[in-house]
Amino acid sequence: MTYEPIDYLPYDFANRRHIGPSPDEMEAMFDTLGVPDLDTLIDQTVPEAIRQETPLDFGKALSERELLHRMRQVADQNEVLTSLIGQGYHGTVTPPAIQRNILENPAWYTAYTPYQPEISQGRLEALLNYQTMVSDLTGLEIANASLLDEATACAEAMTMAQRVAKSKARAFFVDENCHPQNIAVMRTRAEPLGIELIVGAPDALDPEAVFGAIFQYPGTHGHLRDLTPQMEALHGAKAVGIVSADPMALCLLKEPGAMGVDIAVGSTQRFGVPMGYGGPHAAYMACRDAFKRAMPGRIVGISVDSHGNRAYRLALQTREQHIRREKATSNVCTAQALLAVMAGFYAVFHGPKGLRAIAQRIHRKTVRLARGLEAAGFKVEPESYFDTITVNVGLLQRGVLQAARREGVNLRRVGTDRVGITLDEVTRPETIEAVWRAFGLVRRDDALDAEYRLPEALIRQTPYLQHDVFHMNRAETEMMRYMRRLADRDLALDRAMIPLGSCTMKLNAAAEMMPISWPEFAALHPFAPTDQARGYATLIEDLSAKLCTITGYDAFSMQPNSGAQGEYAGLLTIRDWQVARGQGHRNVCLIPVNAHGTNPASAHMVGWTVVAVKCDEMGSIDLADFRAKAEKHADALAACMITYPSTHGVFEETVREVCEITHAHGGQVYIDGANMNAMVGLSRPGDLGGDVSHLNLHKTFCIPHGGGGPGMGPIGVKAHLVPHLPSHPLEPGVGSVSAAPYGSPSLLPISWAYVLMMGGEGMTQATRVAILNANYIARRLEGAYDVLYRGHAGRVAHECILDTRPFEKSAGITVEDIAKRLMDAGFHAPTMSWPVAGTLMVEPTESETKAELDRFCDAMLAIREEIRAIEEGRMDRESNPLKLAPHTMEDLVKDWDRPYSREQGCFPPGAFRVDKYWPPVNRVDNVYGDRNLVCTCPPMSELPEAAE
Amino acid sequence: MTYEPIDYLPYDFANRRHIGPSPDEMEAMFDTLGVPDLDTLIDQTVPEAIRQETPLDFGKALSERELLHRMRQVADQNEVLTSLIGQGYHGTVTPPAIQRNILENPAWYTAYTPYQPEISQGRLEALLNYQTMVSDLTGLEIANASLLDEATACAEAMTMAQRVAKSKARAFFVDENCHPQNIAVMRTRAEPLGIELIVGAPDALDPEAVFGAIFQYPGTHGHLRDLTPQMEALHGAKAVGIVSADPMALCLLKEPGAMGVDIAVGSTQRFGVPMGYGGPHAAYMACRDAFKRAMPGRIVGISVDSHGNRAYRLALQTREQHIRREKATSNVCTAQALLAVMAGFYAVFHGPKGLRAIAQRIHRKTVRLARGLEAAGFKVEPESYFDTITVNVGLLQRGVLQAARREGVNLRRVGTDRVGITLDEVTRPETIEAVWRAFGLVRRDDALDAEYRLPEALIRQTPYLQHDVFHMNRAETEMMRYMRRLADRDLALDRAMIPLGSCTMKLNAAAEMMPISWPEFAALHPFAPTDQARGYATLIEDLSAKLCTITGYDAFSMQPNSGAQGEYAGLLTIRDWQVARGQGHRNVCLIPVNAHGTNPASAHMVGWTVVAVKCDEMGSIDLADFRAKAEKHADALAACMITYPSTHGVFEETVREVCEITHAHGGQVYIDGANMNAMVGLSRPGDLGGDVSHLNLHKTFCIPHGGGGPGMGPIGVKAHLVPHLPSHPLEPGVGSVSAAPYGSPSLLPISWAYVLMMGGEGMTQATRVAILNANYIARRLEGAYDVLYRGHAGRVAHECILDTRPFEKSAGITVEDIAKRLMDAGFHAPTMSWPVAGTLMVEPTESETKAELDRFCDAMLAIREEIRAIEEGRMDRESNPLKLAPHTMEDLVKDWDRPYSREQGCFPPGAFRVDKYWPPVNRVDNVYGDRNLVCTCPPMSELPEAAE
Repeated sequence: MTYEPIDYLPYDFANRRHIGPSPDEMEAMFDTLGVPDLDTLIDQTVPEAIRQETPLDFGKALSERELLHRMRQVADQNEVLTSLIGQGYHGTVTPPAIQRNILENPAWYTAYTPYQPEISQGRLEALLNYQTMVSDLTGLEIANASLLDEATACAEAMTMAQRVAKSKARAFFVDENCHPQNIAVMRTRAEPLGIELIVGAPDALDPEAVFGAIFQYPGTHGHLRDLTPQMEALHGAKAVGIVSADPMALCLLKEPGAMGVDIAVGSTQRFGVPMGYGGPHAAYMACRDAFKRAMPGRIVGISVDSHGNRAYRLALQTREQHIRREKATSNVCTAQALLAVMAGFYAVFHGPKGLRAIAQRIHRKTVRLARGLEAAGFKVEPESYFDTITVNVGLLQRGVLQAARREGVNLRRVGTDRVGITLDEVTRPETIEAVWRAFGLVRRDDALDAEYRLPEALIRQTPYLQHDVFHMNRAETEMMRYMRRLADRDLALDRAMIPLGSCTMKLNAAAEMMPISWPEFAALHPFAPTDQARGYATLIEDLSAKLCTITGYDAFSMQPNSGAQGEYAGLLTIRDWQVARGQGHRNVCLIPVNAHGTNPASAHMVGWTVVAVKCDEMGSIDLADFRAKAEKHADALAACMITYPSTHGVFEETVREVCEITHAHGGQVYIDGANMNAMVGLSRPGDLGGDVSHLNLHKTFCIPHGGGGPGMGPIGVKAHLVPHLPSHPLEPGVGSVSAAPYGSPSLLPISWAYVLMMGGEGMTQATRVAILNANYIARRLEGAYDVLYRGHAGRVAHECILDTRPFEKSAGITVEDIAKRLMDAGFHAPTMSWPVAGTLMVEPTESETKAELDRFCDAMLAIREEIRAIEEGRMDRESNPLKLAPHTMEDLVKDWDRPYSREQGCFPPGAFRVDKYWPPVNRVDNVYGDRNLVCTCPPMSELPEAAE
Repeated sequence: MTYEPIDYLPYDFANRRHIGPSPDEMEAMFDTLGVPDLDTLIDQTVPEAIRQETPLDFGKALSERELLHRMRQVADQNEVLTSLIGQGYHGTVTPPAIQRNILENPAWYTAYTPYQPEISQGRLEALLNYQTMVSDLTGLEIANASLLDEATACAEAMTMAQRVAKSKARAFFVDENCHPQNIAVMRTRAEPLGIELIVGAPDALDPEAVFGAIFQYPGTHGHLRDLTPQMEALHGAKAVGIVSADPMALCLLKEPGAMGVDIAVGSTQRFGVPMGYGGPHAAYMACRDAFKRAMPGRIVGISVDSHGNRAYRLALQTREQHIRREKATSNVCTAQALLAVMAGFYAVFHGPKGLRAIAQRIHRKTVRLARGLEAAGFKVEPESYFDTITVNVGLLQRGVLQAARREGVNLRRVGTDRVGITLDEVTRPETIEAVWRAFGLVRRDDALDAEYRLPEALIRQTPYLQHDVFHMNRAETEMMRYMRRLADRDLALDRAMIPLGSCTMKLNAAAEMMPISWPEFAALHPFAPTDQARGYATLIEDLSAKLCTITGYDAFSMQPNSGAQGEYAGLLTIRDWQVARGQGHRNVCLIPVNAHGTNPASAHMVGWTVVAVKCDEMGSIDLADFRAKAEKHADALAACMITYPSTHGVFEETVREVCEITHAHGGQVYIDGANMNAMVGLSRPGDLGGDVSHLNLHKTFCIPHGGGGPGMGPIGVKAHLVPHLPSHPLEPGVGSVSAAPYGSPSLLPISWAYVLMMGGEGMTQATRVAILNANYIARRLEGAYDVLYRGHAGRVAHECILDTRPFEKSAGITVEDIAKRLMDAGFHAPTMSWPVAGTLMVEPTESETKAELDRFCDAMLAIREEIRAIEEGRMDRESNPLKLAPHTMEDLVKDWDRPYSREQGCFPPGAFRVDKYWPPVNRVDNVYGDRNLVCTCPPMSELPEAAE
């Protein structure tokens, strides 16, 4: 017999799982919008002129199961050896409780950067733990909440030193013992800024010649040295002393602070974060209190809420300085929050005794290994060391490395006649014996005596991790509950929409996340021989090819490990191209006033001068002004940086013209990919005239935000720029922007999974639904809030700006009051005051259902009615639910003397009843200037137009 | 140089992670208890006479990392082929979001059985979804919340039929199309109960000769048959009709209810639960409304709370009937809650359209496979089928099976000349082609036509899954949030201690849980060739050997998949031994009145008569009464069942004498292992005189409770009983008690991990600390609550009974009021009213820290003060925080007209402030008799002493 076929596709990831609105819901939304179908809406929204010609087609999309099968095949192409290469990357044991309850828990990994402190107290506490750990271990007063990687942290420290040093020297000294990738990234960073890099032995330091100096501790080949004399000399010359230190070594060794170091940086990777073929990991930075205002990155601080209760918050003043300033020397606007949280919990998990014991075990294993080699006559250096030794093997180098490889061990090739060995937490006696065999020695590792090879003078004399949290009961039961309590204090995507304009908080699907826990992706050393990383090569090649198809570019570099890093890498690429064609003098970059704040900061970092271009009243680039400035600076024009669709949420029809003008005057076009979620499948920046773009894989391509990082910002370029892309940090070339060749590659399975499960059609539909969702919100809020900018058919792109400025005058209600009131309804606020001060930018993404959009709209409409009640005098201007938002359980339990009811205060429309989310603190007392979000870097309009 | 060594062991799982109190905390606890050290306390508590001679020693305990390494090695010994064996076990796709957010989420897996409904609303809703799914698919009105496996569900249905049938026949008909393991378990169950099993073809049914009949649908070899005529014939003879049906097939086929079936059973394994080499999975049972009171197992029902709001609860009446009744024919007192939740979510995830599409795909693949074989001339039967075909291959059987094996596929051997093939959700075209190749055919699976081979008359005509929950938006974002909301409504071990006497809610460590997600453990078919399960063999062998050492037994059977099942299997083993030595007439079982209610129920199930033995005022067995009854029934004495330490929480010194008396009169000793957590490393039941014990691996050995299952109840026996242990369900032997040879083997990695990471010393210390923690609570509550039973030195074992009966008279406060008030403080109540009505039995386990014990004691002491206020007239007898507990957010937001403050009501001592847990409903309106917990099966004293 035959049977009525069922056209339902149960494994259709795109339409069944990723895209929020169901077909029925979409129909209802079309009705609301007055369009017959999605095609019509898209035609009204996305100008014909910018549409791509051929639809995206990557063949049949994979189901979740097929994806995991494919991932498994690719993972199996990676070969996981024991890597004793060291050089800043080490084997480590991720405590299973941390893996399960943090890394694999959506409550942690789907959270956003904690800019809204009232709904972020959990991760703020976790990050404060991390900072405390860094501060204690380094012996320095102030630590930030992480940077991208050790090498970029070194570069940040260098430029920070330049800012704070009283010395007027232009050179910077780099200890030759620094890890090569650190030197490489500093070299890249120094050159455009006109900093002369002097690489040499510590004894060769001429303090008068430099504004600062950096040393590696322990050195890349294992050397230990008390740097106090160098610090004294530097201070004598009013220069700044920096140390890049291994935090595990600091558990046994004299801390930088005790040597007089001004700034310490390093990687916390070996605190429980897998190597992941290079990242992501949290780099740390700490400094003396005097320099805290110059420190880049986020700093978590302690404050109080409106009832005087303790509350955590981000102390943002410092980074504002750098991004806002004309002479910004840092574009840092993200962190490695999730990894910093893991590293911090690793310290909580082990406590000072545990960390010390782990460090001691590592050292003792190293001593045993060295003694075995010495006993056989090998020359081991240095004499004293922590975990790294270098063995002179002369002509045997190749043979030893190959023999080790056959034993399942990667050693480090040093020069032409030496071999480096670095042991770690996971080294077992079998590994030590395997290394010995690689040197031709057959012996058992059974000598457990307590000999040490640490210099007496470098033994640490001070305690660390004395705060209570590092002395809490470490039973897993207690740890698990602590992690749960912190998670519960926060509001993340696993509970509610996070409608953050420009941040694209979409679904991070479980199937996408699973492979990153697999050892085949997690356990590779970034400098392992490439034939052990064939799976990564396959993945990166295929993902790059697909991203090229999506964007219209010819090649991708995966090296930038954040969006801002991508901007910087893209501009470096353009700069190198300009130099190569004899146009190295070009140094003007045109940037519209509504650009992300990182844009001008990145331009400054490559040594360019920013010329701001006006916008018209629609929020679009003022073409006349653009043309005028391009002409004016024609001889010096290096590039322009634009965002598409614009940061005002509009598809500008003039984009091709902007690109043509730029090209006509010798410039290159950088199109910021922050808003790529409005374009995938519909329009390609490469087709519009872009020469370079970065993509935020943590926005458009589903890498979770992790509570403020990790991210990935790969760049796509046109063919002519390919030779100018960042090069491998250990190889000669243009230069590198990150420590590891592929940035944070262990995140790439997430984006690849997304692309494979969506297919071209699915991704295009996602873009279309993202636009549908934004327009639906704009329509539902019509009459209550003005949408600031629209395209010519009255539509918005994938986000919209709601004008809340009039309420300040009419009711004394600020955008912040609205943001906090949304917490009572169980929402994270939209992006506040960016790109237009006093407004809210809403981006729902395609992953939200109509029901959730409606819940949000209901909450927003109710807020409007509350404002109206104030406007009409029915509600007090001070004692009202907006001004007193958010409401906490404490408010409810105390006497209630407000002119509105508990019910009104705590359960506004939109709030869940039984499943109500309670902010753990009342409104946090922020100083006014502390509201500069990553996604709301201050508008360019606040910058003086430098070149004029 | 040498360096001061650090004696801190960072990887010591036992003392660092598993055991709660830190060394400092323990010192403080010794002070409180007035003992100098733990040795002294243990000497005071555990009588010398019962202590084991040699300490447990399993060599060096493994660290978490070493454990995972070892697990990986063992996992790799298992070979994961594609099993098309069918027979009730099928490949299935666990949606990644369900795997991550349910199976791997401690909020779900550490929860207890939802006996306290106010703090269990989340899983109750999930289980209600499951029941609704079962009811819809089977077309029957009532479904329970799961049974252990399909085979035991068949046996339960058989005995249920006997209870409800008006026919007085003693025989039961079994369709020969039933899966062999179902027949085997029914045969085991029937024999002691005197039920004659008639196995035959459906047409051979003589309805007058039987009280009931069971049919498999589809049949084990694929046959489909409309059973309406059989049902009509059975009803005509006042007999009961049962069908064991595949729920996936029911998505396309006429449902049992439409055929007039009275009871339907089956397995929901293929709804997203991995095969796991046999389990755990949730078996379902559904029946007509008229029979609901006879149904075994738990049923979730809808009720209201004290404010009239909807609330879920367990409707327990039915199972009480069976466990309390003298003639109990079921000892079911657990379920497969976690797996039922997963299966229910699978249905929510796919909805009716999705399930239908999946079933259709499976069927169409089967048709394509069959057509290929038919085209090549093979004889395929039956003519119409769903997913299973049987191919007559004559002499080629062995060759085809081997060829398939080489292709990576397991087929089913049927008789000597046939091969069975069952396709499933995960069958890919490549698999079909591989099967064809095994038959010598080279062809492509590319014919996607829509031919069906379902009988026209058996096409399902009715809709299913019409409830809203199965039509919610199925975007993963929404699903993830729904799972989180439900999880957040419940209180599980990841937030607070669950001090349930006799239930041993200890840490379920993340490292222990991780391996069960690995396909090498999860994806094996229970009837796959044993050479594909060498890893399981290694694990089971080593775990069994260690359990033998721990208990003093000589062998273990892993077949029983719950504690009660273990009791039953143990008694069957004794019974078989008695029969074998010509003592088959022995049928009296001595059971003390304070025994678990399952004890007498299990005894009844093997056809024995229970004789209750009194206890003295100390809660110990009345030795004189025991001796008298043993003598009186000397000729008929089959066994005694005792619990050690006693259910009153005391180490009885007379235990050896009890065993000697029993043996002297020809009986065997069954020692219930429920309280093994007080013995491991200190005392061995086998040494005390026990012949058999079951262990609750889900208590003592860390398998999580999963919100009410899974569990594992393996039995250990002395050497003479080994030949009488349960046999493989597909092989001749004593008989089997579960569908799969090793019960629920995919749980065993958890217990094995625990044993390996703790080592002998660690487990012994765990026991000692469990005793310490219980005594600490007893001491801290002294003066406020009387501890009902103590050993002669005034110590309790690992749990203690708090007497709350006096408060009923003094203040009108019941034990239930106290239990509900504890919820306000963020605690799950201790075991209520068992083994003594009106009391609380507290078991903290070794995993709780002193801080958490103190929080609990603070809460209990504050409750005592509230009671005192009532006693002294300072508080109203009705309107007080105890009677009105638990308090909800709704109470707080509404007008408050109570004589105590909001603060007093909602934040009693012990409650977290910011991290407050709110019960989502007020007190649930239970009928009085509905308080019979699994751990508080009604005391034997309520049973008439049958044999007297």
